[in-house]
Amino acid sequence: MTEKREYCGLFGVFGHPDAVERVYLGLFALQHRGQESAGIASTDGSTIKHHVGMGLVRDVFTRPDLEALRNRAAIGHVRYSTTGSSRVENAQPMVVRYSRGPVAVAHNGNLTNARLLRDEFEARGSIFRTTNDTEVIVHLLAGVASQNLADPYAYVLDRLEGAYSLLILAPDRLIAACDPYKLRPLSLGRLGDAYVVSSETCAFDMLNITRVRDIEPGEILHITEAGLRSSTYCHPDRVRPSHCIFEHIYFSRPDSYVFGDSVHAVRRNLGRQLAREHPTEADVVVAIPDTGHSAAVGYALESNIPLDIGFIRSHYVGRTFIQPSQADRASSVQVKLNIMREVVEGKRIVVIEDSVVRGTTTRGKMEALRAAGAREIHLRVSSPPVRHPCFYGIDFPTSNELIASGRTPKEIADFLGIDSIGYLSVPGTLSCVSRPPSHYCTACFTGRYPVPIGAHMGKYAMERHQLSMF
Amino acid sequence: MTEKREYCGLFGVFGHPDAVERVYLGLFALQHRGQESAGIASTDGSTIKHHVGMGLVRDVFTRPDLEALRNRAAIGHVRYSTTGSSRVENAQPMVVRYSRGPVAVAHNGNLTNARLLRDEFEARGSIFRTTNDTEVIVHLLAGVASQNLADPYAYVLDRLEGAYSLLILAPDRLIAACDPYKLRPLSLGRLGDAYVVSSETCAFDMLNITRVRDIEPGEILHITEAGLRSSTYCHPDRVRPSHCIFEHIYFSRPDSYVFGDSVHAVRRNLGRQLAREHPTEADVVVAIPDTGHSAAVGYALESNIPLDIGFIRSHYVGRTFIQPSQADRASSVQVKLNIMREVVEGKRIVVIEDSVVRGTTTRGKMEALRAAGAREIHLRVSSPPVRHPCFYGIDFPTSNELIASGRTPKEIADFLGIDSIGYLSVPGTLSCVSRPPSHYCTACFTGRYPVPIGAHMGKYAMERHQLSMF
Amino acid sequence: MTEKREYCGLFGVFGHPDAVERVYLGLFALQHRGQESAGIASTDGSTIKHHVGMGLVRDVFTRPDLEALRNRAAIGHVRYSTTGSSRVENAQPMVVRYSRGPVAVAHNGNLTNARLLRDEFEARGSIFRTTNDTEVIVHLLAGVASQNLADPYAYVLDRLEGAYSLLILAPDRLIAACDPYKLRPLSLGRLGDAYVVSSETCAFDMLNITRVRDIEPGEILHITEAGLRSSTYCHPDRVRPSHCIFEHIYFSRPDSYVFGDSVHAVRRNLGRQLAREHPTEADVVVAIPDTGHSAAVGYALESNIPLDIGFIRSHYVGRTFIQPSQADRASSVQVKLNIMREVVEGKRIVVIEDSVVRGTTTRGKMEALRAAGAREIHLRVSSPPVRHPCFYGIDFPTSNELIASGRTPKEIADFLGIDSIGYLSVPGTLSCVSRPPSHYCTACFTGRYPVPIGAHMGKYAMERHQLSMF
Amino acid sequence: MTEKREYCGLFGVFGHPDAVERVYLGLFALQHRGQESAGIASTDGSTIKHHVGMGLVRDVFTRPDLEALRNRAAIGHVRYSTTGSSRVENAQPMVVRYSRGPVAVAHNGNLTNARLLRDEFEARGSIFRTTNDTEVIVHLLAGVASQNLADPYAYVLDRLEGAYSLLILAPDRLIAACDPYKLRPLSLGRLGDAYVVSSETCAFDMLNITRVRDIEPGEILHITEAGLRSSTYCHPDRVRPSHCIFEHIYFSRPDSYVFGDSVHAVRRNLGRQLAREHPTEADVVVAIPDTGHSAAVGYALESNIPLDIGFIRSHYVGRTFIQPSQADRASSVQVKLNIMREVVEGKRIVVIEDSVVRGTTTRGKMEALRAAGAREIHLRVSSPPVRHPCFYGIDFPTSNELIASGRTPKEIADFLGIDSIGYLSVPGTLSCVSRPPSHYCTACFTGRYPVPIGAHMGKYAMERHQLSMF
Repeated sequence: MTEKREYCGLFGVFGHPDAVERVYLGLFALQHRGQESAGIASTDGSTIKHHVGMGLVRDVFTRPDLEALRNRAAIGHVRYSTTGSSRVENAQPMVVRYSRGPVAVAHNGNLTNARLLRDEFEARGSIFRTTNDTEVIVHLLAGVASQNLADPYAYVLDRLEGAYSLLILAPDRLIAACDPYKLRPLSLGRLGDAYVVSSETCAFDMLNITRVRDIEPGEILHITEAGLRSSTYCHPDRVRPSHCIFEHIYFSRPDSYVFGDSVHAVRRNLGRQLAREHPTEADVVVAIPDTGHSAAVGYALESNIPLDIGFIRSHYVGRTFIQPSQADRASSVQVKLNIMREVVEGKRIVVIEDSVVRGTTTRGKMEALRAAGAREIHLRVSSPPVRHPCFYGIDFPTSNELIASGRTPKEIADFLGIDSIGYLSVPGTLSCVSRPPSHYCTACFTGRYPVPIGAHMGKYAMERHQLSMF
Repeated sequence: MTEKREYCGLFGVFGHPDAVERVYLGLFALQHRGQESAGIASTDGSTIKHHVGMGLVRDVFTRPDLEALRNRAAIGHVRYSTTGSSRVENAQPMVVRYSRGPVAVAHNGNLTNARLLRDEFEARGSIFRTTNDTEVIVHLLAGVASQNLADPYAYVLDRLEGAYSLLILAPDRLIAACDPYKLRPLSLGRLGDAYVVSSETCAFDMLNITRVRDIEPGEILHITEAGLRSSTYCHPDRVRPSHCIFEHIYFSRPDSYVFGDSVHAVRRNLGRQLAREHPTEADVVVAIPDTGHSAAVGYALESNIPLDIGFIRSHYVGRTFIQPSQADRASSVQVKLNIMREVVEGKRIVVIEDSVVRGTTTRGKMEALRAAGAREIHLRVSSPPVRHPCFYGIDFPTSNELIASGRTPKEIADFLGIDSIGYLSVPGTLSCVSRPPSHYCTACFTGRYPVPIGAHMGKYAMERHQLSMF
Repeated sequence: MTEKREYCGLFGVFGHPDAVERVYLGLFALQHRGQESAGIASTDGSTIKHHVGMGLVRDVFTRPDLEALRNRAAIGHVRYSTTGSSRVENAQPMVVRYSRGPVAVAHNGNLTNARLLRDEFEARGSIFRTTNDTEVIVHLLAGVASQNLADPYAYVLDRLEGAYSLLILAPDRLIAACDPYKLRPLSLGRLGDAYVVSSETCAFDMLNITRVRDIEPGEILHITEAGLRSSTYCHPDRVRPSHCIFEHIYFSRPDSYVFGDSVHAVRRNLGRQLAREHPTEADVVVAIPDTGHSAAVGYALESNIPLDIGFIRSHYVGRTFIQPSQADRASSVQVKLNIMREVVEGKRIVVIEDSVVRGTTTRGKMEALRAAGAREIHLRVSSPPVRHPCFYGIDFPTSNELIASGRTPKEIADFLGIDSIGYLSVPGTLSCVSRPPSHYCTACFTGRYPVPIGAHMGKYAMERHQLSMF
Repeated sequence: MTEKREYCGLFGVFGHPDAVERVYLGLFALQHRGQESAGIASTDGSTIKHHVGMGLVRDVFTRPDLEALRNRAAIGHVRYSTTGSSRVENAQPMVVRYSRGPVAVAHNGNLTNARLLRDEFEARGSIFRTTNDTEVIVHLLAGVASQNLADPYAYVLDRLEGAYSLLILAPDRLIAACDPYKLRPLSLGRLGDAYVVSSETCAFDMLNITRVRDIEPGEILHITEAGLRSSTYCHPDRVRPSHCIFEHIYFSRPDSYVFGDSVHAVRRNLGRQLAREHPTEADVVVAIPDTGHSAAVGYALESNIPLDIGFIRSHYVGRTFIQPSQADRASSVQVKLNIMREVVEGKRIVVIEDSVVRGTTTRGKMEALRAAGAREIHLRVSSPPVRHPCFYGIDFPTSNELIASGRTPKEIADFLGIDSIGYLSVPGTLSCVSRPPSHYCTACFTGRYPVPIGAHMGKYAMERHQLSMF
């Protein structure tokens, strides 16, 4: 699938002279999780500096920016917004001052009780400058500062509901935490004496950081000069692992390990399983770039049909691309993703796509394949049909816009103009990962939401509310 | 004087279809009061939109920006910061949401109890994102929202101490207010059925707005669809007019009326009085551009010495000007302000300057005059010696950097390398304005501060505190 | 007058280690002669480097640009185009290579035989990349390179017709030249052992450069390491000084000496003469900024009517200013140039303007004066009526757009809505400068063109031709 | 190989209402051939408009730019410079005016007699503004304009030596031509009634353009409203096809057909042949992105070793990427191209690379593979060793910087730190394309240069000359 539905990436380093530079490089590795804004905050032990901006990491930071931030502890953030509008005020990390001094917060995910908490705070006289969940978190933190709590950060986390990963930078510590469901990945690494936390491990390999372990559901980690201190901030009954299976299917980079598995290996397994569930006679297997590649390798291995390259993706087409003015949609699609005519002409093709959401873009690609002379097109999707919205951070459209919602595979194939379609089954999908099936969230396939959603809530209500907020 | 010491400008319109465009044009007229950032907020009666940015009005707004803001009520702000660092987060108007909905605040001046109020709020669990006094005001507003107050805005204003003018835009009203001392100007105007509020009246003439009257010390004005409602928000005993005399001497545009007088007429009077207090034999009177012109007209009139043009100012030299690398300070000054050799060569010159602060820039100009062949240089300053810091918004340096602090006129003349210097007396200065002498603040000359300053306060303490805040 | 009709500025330095920096600073002093593009070329004795760009000097050059150019000889150019369209390819200096090596040319003025020379070159097989006269000059230079000429540069200059000043930088020399009429100013200065050439002398004072003398009509100056060599490149009969009187009236900076006179002194004389030719009863004399100031000083001196400030010009309004959308022309004018109501209300005003071209902008100002309460308005123009187009570089409109063309002063006053108008006479104008009347070009007043114009020529023909050229 | 060695791309359309938009989209498809500058020129039948700029197609053109160019005939160009410095003046198409009117020229390749022609022209009095071969071509064109030639364009082409493709746009025609060796590809297509010419055919598929045929060596094509007219502009003896084999190995997009073959199919064949020439025992085949993919498909097919994904390339790292300051080269490489640890750890790996030039970047990748745990590394290169410079447009370094120059495969493997290396043989390479071996240029492998190079020439002499030219 190529619809944008990424979200945020977090990266933090504590105790390294080049902490800011490591965060900067780490954010490049996480750029696929957010291209809307980027930011870094760092501390010298008493004050906090930060630099944030709209756009890609490469465009937001200059060398002087990095030099001005240079410190031994830093956190960074790349953002793709699912809630909150697109303004620099919403860029993270958010830095505020409260009674205990300055603090920076970077956050990935959606709070399902954000609206309730906002109302509560406003009723008590608080003000909000952004439409960002992060601002709710810092209000909570400031609200308990005067109380004599063993761990005020843990206390605050226990108040949050929803799916999130979190980095907090205070002058004396770096805090990393996951929600009790751990929908989003977050991993701990080690770089010499320093600790590193990252949304994905792909950043570890490239920076010579040793992968240590995942942050656990409901875990809060205090990293200070004294070392690491871990605890569970919520009642053990609340801990119920529900890892987002879409991290494996689409979001995470294939060179990452998330929820204990290699993403690439999982996807290759999905491809193998897909070949078992939906075999077909064909001449060649091709992937839709870039996310279909790993599954295509698996499908080819299992089916013994040769793998080849069917699509060429151009990386030069950016946001400023001027769409053709005439009714020539095909050209517009193919400027970005051209067909390899030599491979498909006169052939029976198995096309591997990671998922199908609205179906409109997929249809464009299938039409281009057909126009290039494909004799038969067999679409194999390395995930089950997406039929339900996601309330935890994925920007799926509403149910009635989802192609798989209320349609049979045959109807979908007809809509796409292809010879057959095969979706992976939910059990088949879950057989490709190593943790127990109950430890994954499959709500977008099954409608069974592991994290409670307030009656008045839902992303759409939320968004509507916020748009009229200011 | 050419040292930067401007501060902010406010402009608001309520009840006009082109409110936003009028505010945009009005901000051009107030640009001399702040070049650091500019912003406009507008309301359609339920939500508030805003657009702010760093830099000049002409660079911050595009036509689409203005069109997106188009509404019947709007406030605008240009800012030169005396406190708070230079970041877009500090740009105004500040827009927040609290329990009563959205609100935009634009503010000119310094609160002397800002630190105390911040500490109080932080102790109660509030968070601060900026180093800006405006944020204190919105916290106060949110804090009383749940109480059943006749006029919560008035209640909030009564809590503030210091020198300020204020515009608040709520969905249903525009509020304008002055502190009980009214250190800064704020005037009311009328444009058809609409009301207009502006820091200075120069904007009125150019926009065909009728000048109605000044906002009074301690006055709060509610402008709604129902019309105008005025009241005094503090105890009458607290009202003690203390208008900043430097508005007349330097800050305000000569085409404005402030505190009841024409600025140009006051400056011309200052020049006449200066000729009476410090007559001299000379061939020609010249002004240092641009603020010395009005006083020079007066000096020439009273002394009967011909007025001529001694300096030419270039308006093409901007912030990106690359200073000469060699030790050639004179060139650097003269690229901006060249001498008219023909006028000064071999002549006895009276030079009119509005004020002398550090003296270093003035010395550069005097050296250039001498190099161009001036035979005698008699500096006449249309204000008394500045010897004390300003805690109400003017960016004077500390006392020991003020040239007049602890030096006799003779010593200052020697430092500047000129033949004589004459400062206006304080009573002479006050004889040029039409309100009673006790109604003006002359603290920078006399050290008598009309607005109490907290023991731990002072701008310098404040600034130090804030710089280390984040 | 405020219509744009500036043209180019030239500045060159030979033999100074900071030649490039001096040229950079010099271009600031000449910025009023052209704001469209700026450029500098420098030589190390064998190659030539250059940097040009669209916009103001301050925006075109960065410090690294200047450092990359650093050399002992350099020429610079600021451009306001009267012919040739507005593209970076037309920016100067133009640098080309021909058989004798590289050469840079910067040029101020219009060649009246440019079209003929172009046709001639094209017929011989030459190509043109720009619509710029400068390209004609370099073709001429290349065309004679193989001939054994005593001074090929002089030979080329003798082929040119029209009004121009010229700087040529070759690896071994800096050449400065004026046309035989010397319509445009060009002066020689000395900075230590180095020689400097500048369109105006205002740059000399600010850079501690000693004014040596003017470059003479028909003179070519070779500046090399061996020193200065001067000659007349054309037959003495062709030398006929015809200095543009508008340099004194409007173009040049008042702090310059051009054609042997101080510009400010000439303007003050024009004002005095104007008071003699057109006395009036009035309360106050005011100037239209910025060019009316010098003449206003003279008018006030001669008439004994007090001088005051009637208009305030804002320097913050730039090219990106968004014009009011409604029919509110007055506001648009006054945002840039506001009236000082205090000075004009109820008064009889003498307004000094340097010239009136179309009359539309002047009318806007007169209406604003009237709206501000002026009782009587007496416009005094410190030049004769402009009735004829200029073919030598000033961007006047065609005759039928000139307000003074075919109208009596009374009709003009009625059009402008004022009580009286007084133009200076031609003899009166010429009595204010020190060279013989026959040495000045007054074609725009009298229609007597000193420099022949080809039958098929005229700026309008030229421009039309060029617009369709590519 | 990832060293930059692309060159230019050409695209032209004649006779289509959306010609300019088609050229714009076509340039996206050719962007891999040049990222330094982009430009489009179009004609309305009498004048020529153009827009060029530095950078990527997406950044150079705005919608208004395209609308301003809208015409029925247009040519476009993307440029990667091998000669001429990087300045906007060198951007193409170059538009000039000569005696026959305006003309636009876009050019791909290097003229080997450019220096001689320049000298010849300069001796005759011509001037040059750029260091670009294109300027030589337009001088030739202008030089013969007055002669009565049957086809002046053909006459000019016959004077050129070297490797080039060419598009010329005159008001009445589009001319396309190839040098007699046809080192670079150029193809003809049809879009309705309009004709299209493109450097590569990949642009045809995506724009629904029918591939017609290649432009032949020594062919000149006149496309006018009257249709197509083809001729050979040189003596038949000079026609000697010498197609650049590197177009197949590396330059062209795999979805193009060049010199009669599908690039992807040729590369797959190269991979198969490589498996035959250099078989090995291994666990997995991986490609170095992006150019190694096609050959890896072939190697895997032939060797029956499974194909997998070994490297992940990030497309977010741009020119403004800030290199790590510490000695951490590995990180810098891996930010762009990370290893898939899961695939390589403990495995015997066959790595497919299209070519190895300097070897330094390849070594970085091999080190990263080893660090990720690869047990054995067998590098297979789908081309012969590059041992000689290219004088026809490829930016190879000098011989002594080429890793394969004077080193045995064993020595190279040692340098790279790998277990074995296998290069394809020259005959093996030529067995993968369908034209006779003698029809390809393999000079960089064999040192046999098909196109004569002047004694004083060579790219390096040329470049040196040009750098000191201005």
